[in-house]
Amino acid sequence: MASVKFRYVSRFRGGLPPGAARFGGMPKFNFTGGHNDPHMIPVDALAAAASSVIKRHGSLLAIYNLGQGPLGYLGLREFLASKLTGTRGMSVTADDILITSGSLQGIDFVNEILLEPGDTILAEEFTYSSVLTRAKKRGISVVPVPVDGDGLRIDQLEAILSDLKAKGVKPKYLYTIPTIQNPTGSILPLERRLSLIQLAKTHEVPIFEDECYADIVWADDAPPALYAIDPTQVIHIGSLSKSLAPALRLGYLVAGWEVLSQIIALKTDGGTGAIDQMVAAEYFSTHFDTHIRKLKSGLLRKLETLVKAVDREFGTDAELTVPKGGIFAWLKFPEGVKVSSLTAPSAESGIAFNPGPEWACAAGSADNMLRLCFALTTEAEIEEGMRELARVCFETTGFPRRGDNRARIERKPDK
Amino acid sequence: MASVKFRYVSRFRGGLPPGAARFGGMPKFNFTGGHNDPHMIPVDALAAAASSVIKRHGSLLAIYNLGQGPLGYLGLREFLASKLTGTRGMSVTADDILITSGSLQGIDFVNEILLEPGDTILAEEFTYSSVLTRAKKRGISVVPVPVDGDGLRIDQLEAILSDLKAKGVKPKYLYTIPTIQNPTGSILPLERRLSLIQLAKTHEVPIFEDECYADIVWADDAPPALYAIDPTQVIHIGSLSKSLAPALRLGYLVAGWEVLSQIIALKTDGGTGAIDQMVAAEYFSTHFDTHIRKLKSGLLRKLETLVKAVDREFGTDAELTVPKGGIFAWLKFPEGVKVSSLTAPSAESGIAFNPGPEWACAAGSADNMLRLCFALTTEAEIEEGMRELARVCFETTGFPRRGDNRARIERKPDK
Repeated sequence: MASVKFRYVSRFRGGLPPGAARFGGMPKFNFTGGHNDPHMIPVDALAAAASSVIKRHGSLLAIYNLGQGPLGYLGLREFLASKLTGTRGMSVTADDILITSGSLQGIDFVNEILLEPGDTILAEEFTYSSVLTRAKKRGISVVPVPVDGDGLRIDQLEAILSDLKAKGVKPKYLYTIPTIQNPTGSILPLERRLSLIQLAKTHEVPIFEDECYADIVWADDAPPALYAIDPTQVIHIGSLSKSLAPALRLGYLVAGWEVLSQIIALKTDGGTGAIDQMVAAEYFSTHFDTHIRKLKSGLLRKLETLVKAVDREFGTDAELTVPKGGIFAWLKFPEGVKVSSLTAPSAESGIAFNPGPEWACAAGSADNMLRLCFALTTEAEIEEGMRELARVCFETTGFPRRGDNRARIERKPDK
Repeated sequence: MASVKFRYVSRFRGGLPPGAARFGGMPKFNFTGGHNDPHMIPVDALAAAASSVIKRHGSLLAIYNLGQGPLGYLGLREFLASKLTGTRGMSVTADDILITSGSLQGIDFVNEILLEPGDTILAEEFTYSSVLTRAKKRGISVVPVPVDGDGLRIDQLEAILSDLKAKGVKPKYLYTIPTIQNPTGSILPLERRLSLIQLAKTHEVPIFEDECYADIVWADDAPPALYAIDPTQVIHIGSLSKSLAPALRLGYLVAGWEVLSQIIALKTDGGTGAIDQMVAAEYFSTHFDTHIRKLKSGLLRKLETLVKAVDREFGTDAELTVPKGGIFAWLKFPEGVKVSSLTAPSAESGIAFNPGPEWACAAGSADNMLRLCFALTTEAEIEEGMRELARVCFETTGFPRRGDNRARIERKPDK
């Protein structure tokens, strides 16, 4: 541990967030974040891909962006263009794609070109927490749009847009995760996608589409991306964090040139890590389909284990929204059970989860909800973790009542 | 080329920089930026390192930051701690080091914790252009401190600090590149380092030390880092861009915990690319000394070629500051020769360089100067590039006079 004191702490600017605590290691039952399954990392094939691509193109590492310009490594952009055309119906080439250092960097760039303090954006009522924290930091109002089991409620969105128009508020964008919504795991049906695009056009609201989870859909039946339906209205981002690994910081942004050229002018980071890009491209160019198939089958098995464990430990008073893909499930406790009261005692028992309030646009709307990522933990840890969480929950809140684990409705994810 | 138009360009926020142009490929004679020598990339050894480390630790890629916390990959931090202790005299452990996505990210973080619009910083009169552009973007005044062949003029610095104090201005930091100053290539002697630390203490000015080039010193005789002299007054950054490769985005920041913890709270990028980190650590942990020795000998050969070519083509009226290490040289034309007039015609002839004004704190102080990076181009390209540059220069400005390439003083870099 460092013991050096910095003499000028008093000269830090005002308004900084609290400093971080020292890293204390990973919790035993880690249901947070977007971690993936360590057993699903194709270690040998990645090692072979790394060796092969470095031998072939390694000397380019001497040049910023491998001498291929600010959009990123051509091999990765070509793989992504092919994947997005084939699986998301998007008519794109390598020239339409910017590689970002994680999809978070893409979110930062979109915010940077569009948002000013006091602006308004729209988002699904429960949505990606980092979008909410970033909006807050910039002084942006986020208007929640209700969702159901099929994602955005278009009727409600229409009413909200009309209401905002009447108030003279022109939202800067609608942030949406149409394919495996985060955290509710839904897939927006084609009909709603078409209506959404039409509504956006009528109300002149740009759509900011996040398809970070679109590679991991159990049934492979997701409708095309919103970008595929109307590229003139959509900025599209995605990631390799879920399909390959989050420690690789690889995201991408697809948009018309006016958007890309503006963002490139702001991407003053010297490029995105090149070996990460090269290895991912090399591996996925030949292994994408087989890897995804295997990954999904492993994740689905863990999800089934989670569904059973939650049913067993929490009973019918807890509602688990079984996702149509991805790596997380959204759990709703009875009204009045506050997940915020569980965080500290859970941590003491080695359990970590994402509290619902961090995933909610409106304060108070998800106080009894939480998000459980099931990819990192083993099936045994999922079972033990849910048992422990139920114990902590009972000791803290009196819920779940003992005995709730008797008459359970058997539930399985749709395949 | 993409043909999609984004419908909402009019909704971009105000004050954005101009959009970037489409990437048009690399210039033939590229003397810009921090590119390295492609022939010096140890392709086979890097491929072997990648294969080995991915096989050993690849499954950790499933976890953000490899499960090792926000400071970054432990293997890389341990290598850096050992290197900084051994070569820079810094008493540090892996816990004192934050891996950043390039040293530019470190600069952004230091700015983020210290600077507010209207603040003042100090820098060497000629300095890293990205520090100047970033300061400008934040509305920061940069006060130039004169340099000579040994770096910062301490007497002048003292006068400037007293003058600022009299005006009630308290600079937020002094940004300095003491070891291979960018762009003048000097090394600050130990005596000046000691005086600088004392002055900083007296005037309560934090020191922001950038040692990006400190691994590449011809004579291996650089005094210890400023951080080694007084870690309580210094935030230290460095990079692997020059010692290994710039397309790997790997920098590091060393500072007391109050600084690190504050910066970690701002590092919301999900971490730095993990395979880049793993490969660099694996390779450098066993090959650092031999690689650096080979790299320096190759760079020194190119520098000698550049010195001769500049002498031959530009004659005695051009002053080339021969650097004590690194990858660039600073060239001064006679007063009145404006390098800004050379940029466009040079580009037409495939020549790119860094115009002096971009490296100068004060407008007008480097209009006749330019920076030449000599690492990327081959020796033949250096010779041809200088011949072409001299031709363009003569056709544009009348300098160098024909015949200047007759009676040259033979100059060699100090070894």
